[in-house]
Amino acid sequence: MSVQKIGIIGLGLMGGSLSLALKKTPTPYHFLGLDHNPSHCMQALELGLIDEIVDSLETISHCDIIFLTIPVDGIIAVAKQLKPMNPDCTVIDMGSTKAKISESIPKQTRHFFVTAHPMTGTEKFGPTAALPNLYEDKVVVLCDMEKSGKHQQERAKKLFTEIGMRLVFMGSKEHDRHAAFISHMPHALSYALANAVMRQEDPESIVALAGGGFKDMSRIAKSNPSMWEDIFRQNKSNLLEAIECFQKELEACKKLVETEKWEALNRWMAEANRLHDIL
Amino acid sequence: MSVQKIGIIGLGLMGGSLSLALKKTPTPYHFLGLDHNPSHCMQALELGLIDEIVDSLETISHCDIIFLTIPVDGIIAVAKQLKPMNPDCTVIDMGSTKAKISESIPKQTRHFFVTAHPMTGTEKFGPTAALPNLYEDKVVVLCDMEKSGKHQQERAKKLFTEIGMRLVFMGSKEHDRHAAFISHMPHALSYALANAVMRQEDPESIVALAGGGFKDMSRIAKSNPSMWEDIFRQNKSNLLEAIECFQKELEACKKLVETEKWEALNRWMAEANRLHDIL
Repeated sequence: MSVQKIGIIGLGLMGGSLSLALKKTPTPYHFLGLDHNPSHCMQALELGLIDEIVDSLETISHCDIIFLTIPVDGIIAVAKQLKPMNPDCTVIDMGSTKAKISESIPKQTRHFFVTAHPMTGTEKFGPTAALPNLYEDKVVVLCDMEKSGKHQQERAKKLFTEIGMRLVFMGSKEHDRHAAFISHMPHALSYALANAVMRQEDPESIVALAGGGFKDMSRIAKSNPSMWEDIFRQNKSNLLEAIECFQKELEACKKLVETEKWEALNRWMAEANRLHDIL
Repeated sequence: MSVQKIGIIGLGLMGGSLSLALKKTPTPYHFLGLDHNPSHCMQALELGLIDEIVDSLETISHCDIIFLTIPVDGIIAVAKQLKPMNPDCTVIDMGSTKAKISESIPKQTRHFFVTAHPMTGTEKFGPTAALPNLYEDKVVVLCDMEKSGKHQQERAKKLFTEIGMRLVFMGSKEHDRHAAFISHMPHALSYALANAVMRQEDPESIVALAGGGFKDMSRIAKSNPSMWEDIFRQNKSNLLEAIECFQKELEACKKLVETEKWEALNRWMAEANRLHDIL
């Protein structure tokens, strides 16, 4: 059997880390990389993330496996153009939203696609941010699997299992609602926290006192705005619902402090503690 | 010179970690521990955090150095009763709020006290949570130092420097405003985030998808409610102001998403990114 060709479209944190993870498995692969940013292509080659730079979707379309590790609006655009040449080709999109992507893939090519969301990442981006263990022991949500071909389903499950991920299956609509609460709304909070501090008279003096709590809460406020603009757009209604649920809780907390209902505040905090029984 | 006696009132994460940190310095100390929880006393002794359990403020009052590592309301209560016997005694309170504590210490004993806030901690508590490097490379804010005796100022600076902390000096009112933004309000956010998720129909399914971002944002929602109730009470007005600043930012974000002002949303996120230039 000849070495399988993997095409990675998008050579950033996610795509680069995927290559590093797959290189640790016993199966040998040949990696082709495509990215609209020429310096990312060069860095990915220099870092050994890919074996070859390609410059067109046409070339990538001959691969056995294709990963889409680009922002979610880009995934929709590429999915419309990509015509896999190999009947067993598996195209895996790794976007943070799933419903709009799952719906937008053309009927004729839908069976090639597996729509996945690996619940991992860092606030960093670009090929130099790639980490060999980014996916290890993390959850990957596989959505609308009944729309993928049998071969493609099995291939995707095998690939994600090989790099140490735990598989969770879900409809794309359910995924997007959950992701709004567990990831998209928390990003809005982190950005809002960072901006609330930056608007103060002397943010440097405030930030000089930052301990681990603040550093953790503001870490994802470093995330790439263009990537997150796309995610917020694609998951607009779920995001707004999640923000409103959060706003109600924070307002309740504020009211308890304002009216000095200390016992009730203590109970409200103790309720929040319970999250850690299931986390 | 005989071995100096250090009294630690409150044998939890902060007090226990302090003992471990001081034991790493070349200076030998004898540690006396006081805690209203008898099992914490036993654990602290078994873990080697203290050399001796004492059961009264009177016994502790003969120490050379006394640390108050208890919740902030407890600090005020103890500060009113504690009568140091040694004229060179240094009493260091390590509460997360400073203005109410600094004001409440009786005039007759005020010079013994140094009011400090080490900007460190974890969401865990009790003697078993103690860590030898909790204070290393962290900031300690020393407040209203002009109210402390000369000897006490020097002693406190030396002790915190010896355990590897960076000293920052500030008035207690300024500290409390900064701490509201950098620590107290972020705790309110984390509790509110945890509660927003726990109120959903199927929190287990949501939490099963948690990645690093959510884990970081919700970590401090595990913090002790009684400790944080006290902090919120003592820093009420600053906390409310900080929550309102945050609410304005989150509402602005929500409006941009609702009205689909994507470019403006992108700019708002990019502004938040700037925090990391100064963090």
